Amino acid sequence: MIIIGELLNGMYKDVGKAIVEKDKSVIQKIAKSQIEAGADALDLNCGPVSKDQVSDMKWLIETVQEVTDKIIVIDSSKPKVIQGAIRSAKNKVIINSTTADKEKLEILLPLAKEYGCSLIALSMDKKGIPQNKDQRLELAASIIGFCMEKDFPINELYLDPVVMPVDVAQLQLKEIIESIREFKLLCDPAPKTVVGLSNISQGILDRSLVNRTFLVMAQEAGLDAAIADPLDKKLMDCMITAELILNKQIYCKAYLDAYRKSKK
Amino acid sequence: MIIIGELLNGMYKDVGKAIVEKDKSVIQKIAKSQIEAGADALDLNCGPVSKDQVSDMKWLIETVQEVTDKIIVIDSSKPKVIQGAIRSAKNKVIINSTTADKEKLEILLPLAKEYGCSLIALSMDKKGIPQNKDQRLELAASIIGFCMEKDFPINELYLDPVVMPVDVAQLQLKEIIESIREFKLLCDPAPKTVVGLSNISQGILDRSLVNRTFLVMAQEAGLDAAIADPLDKKLMDCMITAELILNKQIYCKAYLDAYRKSKK
Repeated sequence: MIIIGELLNGMYKDVGKAIVEKDKSVIQKIAKSQIEAGADALDLNCGPVSKDQVSDMKWLIETVQEVTDKIIVIDSSKPKVIQGAIRSAKNKVIINSTTADKEKLEILLPLAKEYGCSLIALSMDKKGIPQNKDQRLELAASIIGFCMEKDFPINELYLDPVVMPVDVAQLQLKEIIESIREFKLLCDPAPKTVVGLSNISQGILDRSLVNRTFLVMAQEAGLDAAIADPLDKKLMDCMITAELILNKQIYCKAYLDAYRKSKK
Repeated sequence: MIIIGELLNGMYKDVGKAIVEKDKSVIQKIAKSQIEAGADALDLNCGPVSKDQVSDMKWLIETVQEVTDKIIVIDSSKPKVIQGAIRSAKNKVIINSTTADKEKLEILLPLAKEYGCSLIALSMDKKGIPQNKDQRLELAASIIGFCMEKDFPINELYLDPVVMPVDVAQLQLKEIIESIREFKLLCDPAPKTVVGLSNISQGILDRSLVNRTFLVMAQEAGLDAAIADPLDKKLMDCMITAELILNKQIYCKAYLDAYRKSKK
């Protein structure tokens, strides 16, 4: 399971301020703390404070790359921000994200292919977020079709079923888990799957409990990656234990420590 | 999800002593504490200290029924203990358990039917514990066949895939979860499913973490009941949150409290 640290996002006050003031130390400290806690990749999002997203994203990438060679996840809904910033990346990159809309896929698929990037694709389009599993599968299948057309390697594709908050769309959560299971069956080799985990608990109490309970279910369904808070130790403990139960790491008494050491 | 409290088992020192000394207060206190914590049913097992299991099981049943009308789970591998004690039960009873062996099913199915009991059936037989999902399904199908032959209502049948400790049979855990999912598809109406949860973590550290992580996965697969420790609050929190995610209880801010209050 790839944990993509979510904390370098300009919507958080300290990060937003650091982006505006170009304060590398704040960004690098958060980057390192997430890696120390077990993150395999770092999501970078300029957030609402950024006035020049292309230049800010470049700065974020360069700043983070000074302290780590972990995967960089360029998080923007605007293809031109991704296009503009991608040349700054030396590390492996995951582009986050495209939708199923043709005009986005036509820009981002060739770009991802050219730079050897992975690509997160949301199973949604201009019409909005799908309301059930079948709609998600239809959009995912259409994305895979585009990938094949553009000769984009399917094992570099991360399908995202689009997670909804439990207090908004409770009925959809099981549909989302089943979507993950069925995304993996859409073709061979299978696409990868990812969720923006914290979305599930937006605005509610017991956020971590809801996040980690959902994560465990999603892991059993075949989830490959989660954009999440690696500093949430209880979440990470559950994630590691789920890997143990799913036979993705060998049991030993100190399996939690063993996993964490293996990441360093 | 039905939580069957596991603590009234003679293998625990205090319970064993109380059974030998016929100390009702100890038994009743443990019964009440489990119900207070959210147990829907109470497993009763005389354990190794009992010299007359039929009489001790009767006493246990009568003692517990003095303080609760929750479901009584008569836990014995010996059909004659169950046969002898069942008349003492006024509460709803689940018999725990039969195997897939014909000689046990031929005694316990008619008995369960006569007394209107549910029946836990382990997907194992004299040959031992199955090593994969297919063997479990074969045994489960054979149990269902017997039920149909004896006209035993399938929705009173609890199939148990036989949980193994993670340090002994790590590879089997995913098979067990998939068995639960497929047991539910074996016939319509579907049989119920149950696990003896704590077996998964026997002899290991972080028992509760492993138990609750497995439980969440099993719930997503369709698990109906678990024999578990209801006093493990973290386990119960996860179980309740899994029910929330699976849309089995309506979301509210205090959904954990709401669930617990609904049990009282």
